[in-house]
Amino acid sequence: MRDAYTDELDAIFDDLAAISRQVQVAVKDATKALLTGDSSIAERVISADAEIDRAREKVEENAFSLLSLQAPVAGDLRTVVAALRMVAELERMGDLSVHVAKVARLRVPDIAIPTDVRPTMERMAAVAEDMVSRVTQVIADRDVEAAIALGRDDEEMDQLRRTSFTELLSDDWNHGVEAAVDIALLGRYYERIADHAVSVANRVVFVVTGHHPAPAA
Amino acid sequence: MRDAYTDELDAIFDDLAAISRQVQVAVKDATKALLTGDSSIAERVISADAEIDRAREKVEENAFSLLSLQAPVAGDLRTVVAALRMVAELERMGDLSVHVAKVARLRVPDIAIPTDVRPTMERMAAVAEDMVSRVTQVIADRDVEAAIALGRDDEEMDQLRRTSFTELLSDDWNHGVEAAVDIALLGRYYERIADHAVSVANRVVFVVTGHHPAPAA
Repeated sequence: MRDAYTDELDAIFDDLAAISRQVQVAVKDATKALLTGDSSIAERVISADAEIDRAREKVEENAFSLLSLQAPVAGDLRTVVAALRMVAELERMGDLSVHVAKVARLRVPDIAIPTDVRPTMERMAAVAEDMVSRVTQVIADRDVEAAIALGRDDEEMDQLRRTSFTELLSDDWNHGVEAAVDIALLGRYYERIADHAVSVANRVVFVVTGHHPAPAA
Repeated sequence: MRDAYTDELDAIFDDLAAISRQVQVAVKDATKALLTGDSSIAERVISADAEIDRAREKVEENAFSLLSLQAPVAGDLRTVVAALRMVAELERMGDLSVHVAKVARLRVPDIAIPTDVRPTMERMAAVAEDMVSRVTQVIADRDVEAAIALGRDDEEMDQLRRTSFTELLSDDWNHGVEAAVDIALLGRYYERIADHAVSVANRVVFVVTGHHPAPAA
């Protein structure tokens, strides 16, 4: 059943998917800057964040005008309120990519990640990027099954964080305090990006089904 | 001018102020656990977080029912939407207090903070707690001037974070990697609590005046 504002609701979700794509580029580029020590890529992530902020404002204005002019109820109201929350989380994921890029920039021309712990950090970055890529599709397709699967896969990120702490707190650690602190904070940023991706996916489940997904076992 | 839902809007703000008070207790207790190594206080913070989550749900339900049944427009709509955002940020501040408490618990019966860097961490914790205390008043009184002042004082937290990094990256650092990582992450948690306090205060300014406060110089 289509009603007066279904098109506008769809447009908001299209805008959210577009922002999620921008975040995906930000995560990918921030990781590239981090792993190559390329300051121009880091700068690109930092300056591109203003576009994500503007896109967020546009979604907020549209949602606000929809609430104001159409006074949606029930499922449609739930959708608009969820969109407001999702856009805040997507913007935050962009900010976290900027934090990663800033750590990379701070260490140029060096690379913040010592070679022997690079695999864990690369995998963490890859998991985060994959989750953002999948949440983009979840938003675009309102795909409940993919959203639920995304929540389950967050477990790998938790495991990687534990591995990373084991590495940098081991007696063999010989890269000093600065590298350890960088890695702890970078791990935190990627973990938060993944957390937000799961949260956005859960909101899509709620919008589509009217129920929150069961927490992962 | 009072209208049908002014009382309900006021009630939502009372609930927000009550949650902010709960967060204040969480920050204070988490810091106490951290500085004393008392695991029972850490446990209290961790288990009390469920109450903050429930209070958040209640505010969300009330805001949702208000949107649904009253279809507020203009300033009232702005207020309800702002309340939804504020409650999400307050809940997040509670989560960050739990993170602090968990670091404290992990190091029991030791204390995560070496004596010589304790002053910086104590000051960081005190600034965060003070900002939460002030934002509680800002919400309760819709105090625009106090809200704007809060935004300006965030500068001290940034300065403390820089001091903390200087301490743990200095050549004199002899507390090892684990303490450095703890301090870097704890600093991040307190900084985020302060960021959220400023953000909540800015939303109160927006609700009362209809304008976002000018960014701090």
